[in-house]
Amino acid sequence: MLYPAEYIAKIRVNYYDTDQMGVVWHGNYLKYFEDAREEMLRSLGCPYEEIEREGVIMPVTEVSLRYLKPARYGDVLSVKVTIAEPPRARLQIAYEITNGDGALCTTGATTLTFVSAKTLTPCRPPSALR
Amino acid sequence: MLYPAEYIAKIRVNYYDTDQMGVVWHGNYLKYFEDAREEMLRSLGCPYEEIEREGVIMPVTEVSLRYLKPARYGDVLSVKVTIAEPPRARLQIAYEITNGDGALCTTGATTLTFVSAKTLTPCRPPSALR
Amino acid sequence: MLYPAEYIAKIRVNYYDTDQMGVVWHGNYLKYFEDAREEMLRSLGCPYEEIEREGVIMPVTEVSLRYLKPARYGDVLSVKVTIAEPPRARLQIAYEITNGDGALCTTGATTLTFVSAKTLTPCRPPSALR
Amino acid sequence: MLYPAEYIAKIRVNYYDTDQMGVVWHGNYLKYFEDAREEMLRSLGCPYEEIEREGVIMPVTEVSLRYLKPARYGDVLSVKVTIAEPPRARLQIAYEITNGDGALCTTGATTLTFVSAKTLTPCRPPSALR
Repeated sequence: MLYPAEYIAKIRVNYYDTDQMGVVWHGNYLKYFEDAREEMLRSLGCPYEEIEREGVIMPVTEVSLRYLKPARYGDVLSVKVTIAEPPRARLQIAYEITNGDGALCTTGATTLTFVSAKTLTPCRPPSALR
Repeated sequence: MLYPAEYIAKIRVNYYDTDQMGVVWHGNYLKYFEDAREEMLRSLGCPYEEIEREGVIMPVTEVSLRYLKPARYGDVLSVKVTIAEPPRARLQIAYEITNGDGALCTTGATTLTFVSAKTLTPCRPPSALR
Repeated sequence: MLYPAEYIAKIRVNYYDTDQMGVVWHGNYLKYFEDAREEMLRSLGCPYEEIEREGVIMPVTEVSLRYLKPARYGDVLSVKVTIAEPPRARLQIAYEITNGDGALCTTGATTLTFVSAKTLTPCRPPSALR
Repeated sequence: MLYPAEYIAKIRVNYYDTDQMGVVWHGNYLKYFEDAREEMLRSLGCPYEEIEREGVIMPVTEVSLRYLKPARYGDVLSVKVTIAEPPRARLQIAYEITNGDGALCTTGATTLTFVSAKTLTPCRPPSALR
């Protein structure tokens, strides 16, 4: 895998993602981040289910989000995922969500760690990510 | 446990339960059913986490719901749970949700089965439910 | 639109759709039904957001589901949507979910009604569905 | 209202909040934050539904979370909400979630803004919060 790595996922906003404010409920963007991140891993030949099958789990240990413009039902969002550098103990990922008009809706970041499913202690990143 | 058994749980509708129609998204009533069912089991001294700890899982195998009147953000709903008879292979539960004005919002039913967590085959109900 | 109408949507199971039983939480299948139903409407040139823009909302008034085999994280499900006949006061839709091995996981049905967003009273189906 | 203001909400972890890692899915803590924040507002005689009824909406514009220890199904969490100072253009809130053993599970912060529901432009905080 070459760093920095970038990927853009297209994600459609569902009706059940909205709340009565008429826009996406703020917590649901973490689903879009996860969808996009996993699509990126799959595109790199390293789907997350295989990582788990090999005995590594990757809990999220930190997130941050800024909401600039609300996304709406029916929007097809572009979620740009950026991994700036190879992970060591942690995998740092940045996200930018734009709507169909190209307006920036949300930015954010997540930190994931590598944990052995057996011992529940930190472990090395899977080779596919190094 | 004496049958028929009844229990009423009070559940507050959260903002994130609504969608842009301004009412609770229809799938979320299954959360209210689950909340009320588990509260009932706890009140009977038989919390679901203990059932799982004893090696029995209770997957839901059938549900049905009728939506008569929408529930809204801020409503404190009464969820009446009825177990008409002792479970054998299956636990049949009926639900009635009324809002603060006493109007019937939703009715429904769920079927749960008893499965051994080890063998993933059907097993007898936990003694507390018999 | 020609009846009976059928559509098959492909839906990937997300990590956040699972619960600690290691399978999809039962309420989340209603999201898959909704995703598939809306994809079908879009494919027919009648996306739900346009129906709402024309002043009609389509609340779900009845659902039923049977769970035959659990779906798992990473599964790509086929959700077959069938509308047997043209809607009058109600739109009746049937669903069959199969996993990648062709095993039937879930069957179900939903009833939707046509309601004027202005008057909140029943109205005729949108012309595209007749 | 007197600042700094503190409130502690008790929140029970639901089964549907967990994922197949056997712990609460990371995005669901934003629900706990929202539950606790709204319970605090209610306890102060200023429930959020009344704020909306008076024409003010309070979208979340920024969140951050740190996950220190996973919360589990059946845990009854203490969510401590702190508002350090009276809001001006923004309402800054800090959160600390501890489990039944007193272990710190999650910390976080949210920023909410005050927006006129009519004009969708920033407005003054509701008087009850000043």
